[in-house]
Amino acid sequence: MSELKAKRVSESLTEMTQIVLNGHINGYGRLFGGQLVEWIDVVAAVVARRHAQCEVTTAEIDNLQFKYPVHTNSTLVLKGRLTYVGRTSMEVRVDSYVERLTGDTKLVNRAYLVMVALDSAHKPIEVPRLILETDEDRAEWEAGERRRLLRRQRKEEQF
Amino acid sequence: MSELKAKRVSESLTEMTQIVLNGHINGYGRLFGGQLVEWIDVVAAVVARRHAQCEVTTAEIDNLQFKYPVHTNSTLVLKGRLTYVGRTSMEVRVDSYVERLTGDTKLVNRAYLVMVALDSAHKPIEVPRLILETDEDRAEWEAGERRRLLRRQRKEEQF
Amino acid sequence: MSELKAKRVSESLTEMTQIVLNGHINGYGRLFGGQLVEWIDVVAAVVARRHAQCEVTTAEIDNLQFKYPVHTNSTLVLKGRLTYVGRTSMEVRVDSYVERLTGDTKLVNRAYLVMVALDSAHKPIEVPRLILETDEDRAEWEAGERRRLLRRQRKEEQF
Amino acid sequence: MSELKAKRVSESLTEMTQIVLNGHINGYGRLFGGQLVEWIDVVAAVVARRHAQCEVTTAEIDNLQFKYPVHTNSTLVLKGRLTYVGRTSMEVRVDSYVERLTGDTKLVNRAYLVMVALDSAHKPIEVPRLILETDEDRAEWEAGERRRLLRRQRKEEQF
Amino acid sequence: MSELKAKRVSESLTEMTQIVLNGHINGYGRLFGGQLVEWIDVVAAVVARRHAQCEVTTAEIDNLQFKYPVHTNSTLVLKGRLTYVGRTSMEVRVDSYVERLTGDTKLVNRAYLVMVALDSAHKPIEVPRLILETDEDRAEWEAGERRRLLRRQRKEEQF
Amino acid sequence: MSELKAKRVSESLTEMTQIVLNGHINGYGRLFGGQLVEWIDVVAAVVARRHAQCEVTTAEIDNLQFKYPVHTNSTLVLKGRLTYVGRTSMEVRVDSYVERLTGDTKLVNRAYLVMVALDSAHKPIEVPRLILETDEDRAEWEAGERRRLLRRQRKEEQF
Repeated sequence: MSELKAKRVSESLTEMTQIVLNGHINGYGRLFGGQLVEWIDVVAAVVARRHAQCEVTTAEIDNLQFKYPVHTNSTLVLKGRLTYVGRTSMEVRVDSYVERLTGDTKLVNRAYLVMVALDSAHKPIEVPRLILETDEDRAEWEAGERRRLLRRQRKEEQF
Repeated sequence: MSELKAKRVSESLTEMTQIVLNGHINGYGRLFGGQLVEWIDVVAAVVARRHAQCEVTTAEIDNLQFKYPVHTNSTLVLKGRLTYVGRTSMEVRVDSYVERLTGDTKLVNRAYLVMVALDSAHKPIEVPRLILETDEDRAEWEAGERRRLLRRQRKEEQF
Repeated sequence: MSELKAKRVSESLTEMTQIVLNGHINGYGRLFGGQLVEWIDVVAAVVARRHAQCEVTTAEIDNLQFKYPVHTNSTLVLKGRLTYVGRTSMEVRVDSYVERLTGDTKLVNRAYLVMVALDSAHKPIEVPRLILETDEDRAEWEAGERRRLLRRQRKEEQF
Repeated sequence: MSELKAKRVSESLTEMTQIVLNGHINGYGRLFGGQLVEWIDVVAAVVARRHAQCEVTTAEIDNLQFKYPVHTNSTLVLKGRLTYVGRTSMEVRVDSYVERLTGDTKLVNRAYLVMVALDSAHKPIEVPRLILETDEDRAEWEAGERRRLLRRQRKEEQF
Repeated sequence: MSELKAKRVSESLTEMTQIVLNGHINGYGRLFGGQLVEWIDVVAAVVARRHAQCEVTTAEIDNLQFKYPVHTNSTLVLKGRLTYVGRTSMEVRVDSYVERLTGDTKLVNRAYLVMVALDSAHKPIEVPRLILETDEDRAEWEAGERRRLLRRQRKEEQF
Repeated sequence: MSELKAKRVSESLTEMTQIVLNGHINGYGRLFGGQLVEWIDVVAAVVARRHAQCEVTTAEIDNLQFKYPVHTNSTLVLKGRLTYVGRTSMEVRVDSYVERLTGDTKLVNRAYLVMVALDSAHKPIEVPRLILETDEDRAEWEAGERRRLLRRQRKEEQF
């Protein structure tokens, strides 16, 4: 069992704000998927660094859904939170919202990423346990456990 | 049932070659995950365009695994192939290989993406059926069917 | 006097998180100043959009200080807040912090930007007044007023 | 007093020409402020390198004014000149002009930057004195002196 | 005479696929020439690496012709093949095609590049001879020989 | 014969200055060829715009020679000048120099580009004749004439 001090979900919450520029969009006026994932990956890495207090790497992007197209000049807000931790891995959820000038927001993308903590030799190391405080924390943890089992099953059965 | 002419897997195979430059890597010498997904997204879009012969958009990135880190100056080869088609959606597998100067290659990333075909008003439209010719084609199709059911189940049960 | 509903400083606070990648740094290992200003400009624009609920443009960058160099792989957190509003202009302060893996943060850059609210014809339009709630709000407003007078004086005396 | 050979303003004049591409503009067709500052920062650094003949770093951007919007496909000409030198710091003015196809030019941005000369250990080192030859040289120097006093005053009084 | 094992043209064929995004085009809707050459240079480098099995550098771009403009959102396919080898240099032809949604392709650019093989000290080293198998291989080789003589003549006569 | 007012070489001289950042270099510390050509293409386009006073496009890059590698953090100066004009086309030479901190410069790349003048419907239009004033102007013109004949010959004989 880890001797590292357990930490709360709230201690690693991370936010990134962007304005979608012309250079980010594809030829028919929508934010290019690959560009959005670039930003999501940065947010997930900072969440994981804040929890593990060490270098991290992206191991898996599991279940990333583009729910609505994002257009040029949109204000985009990405919010990352820890949902589940294993021994050396952390699952991070990153939600991306378009924020209208009226202040309304709309969820346009949800992604789950698996990040691995690395020591200075770039080998996986143990991460702090996660303290679950709210019902949302606990619901995400349970769903995270299901996702972890599913990922293991998919690797074994190769699909 | 679609009246579009069915097409072979081989008709939409797509290849992209890159050299990993300094601007693509993160601060500890590895290819930045978000950059790789940018390239993967382009490859998947071209596979889907070649099959559907229309505009496409990325709906989902399902199960993207970073198996090995990629270092600066590597030759990177990305290969995309169609694995499964629904009525308006197409599942594409993109494998990314590092190619050494000796010619040896190593699989560093595997990703499955769901692409949707769009008409000129950006509404989903029907895509050609897929002709399965080889055992690999059929095995991928079966696994693709499992992945599709799983994605549907995950949406219903929200995990 | 504006009939727009006055708003609090807290209603337009904006945060951006970045990881400094190799492509962002100059040839001797420090974050390139121009890259940092790119991010600062986005943060200031979102603060101003949130307050004015319309399109905005950067009119002036007044007093931007690079206090410490930023190195590759750093986690960088940018925080923007409104400090002063005129009739059609808004002054925004953006503070940039490096966040160590230990969680310690250090202020590396402070910038004040003047943003102007634009209507759909790209002409300046009135912005909501600012409700000052805290001592910090009031101190920033007073300093903002001094900076505004100073900017006017500098334009008249051309220095 | 520096034993370095004093140099003329004309010895460090620097010019950069750009064409504003689509990737440089924001969502409503204007050159993105942050992109312009990237180019300004490069010009200022080259002016300072040419005067000091050593590595330099940006310490401050003081008074950068966006006078007119810049649109896509514009030819942009940036001109940098030394205005004032302290013991280890140099003040550089960078003027940015849009050049029409007719050859007419229009000043769209003026910026003053403070650059610091660095030795090989990245510590500030002395720079050559500046020989003032023209009336413009002398007028800029006097204004530069006022700006320097003002910057000092603002640091002391923190506004 | 080289003791390296001679290799076929087919052993170093290289393909890159791109989608032309908004960030790649200039202000009047055409792919920016410099961006296309960036991609061509990567393709040529991979062809040369595959033949020489060592690091390579671009020595010359000889005769690059933009035959048709390329518009945003186009699928672009670049194909590189070896045409001629000297002792330490390799000539590579890169053809760029626009691929319509109908599947039709059109040659939009043809370029010849001279690449040089480098050892670990960045000095030129010998490359394998080229086995010519097809009539196209032989025709390209002969034309490559003419281009080489021409390049030599142009260096001597300086035009 | 054109009725456009003939112009001097000196009227379209163009200069660009850059600092080579980490994002511009390849994996073994040299400026990436494709990035340099991006900058060269911008310089050539501005030279041609200044002469023709209309939109232009790159038709050909003929004879671009990388004479020396360029390393990160170098100051790079690109100078473009008109060498020859046809009826609707212009030949531009772009020389790229590395400038050391000592002030010494070294020619690292020389390129000749053929640019075509375009009217508002993107059709080729006539350009002003070129007034040759100096011996260098005349020598470049003669060499330019040889290059033009050579380009024509190469197209006919397809090599």
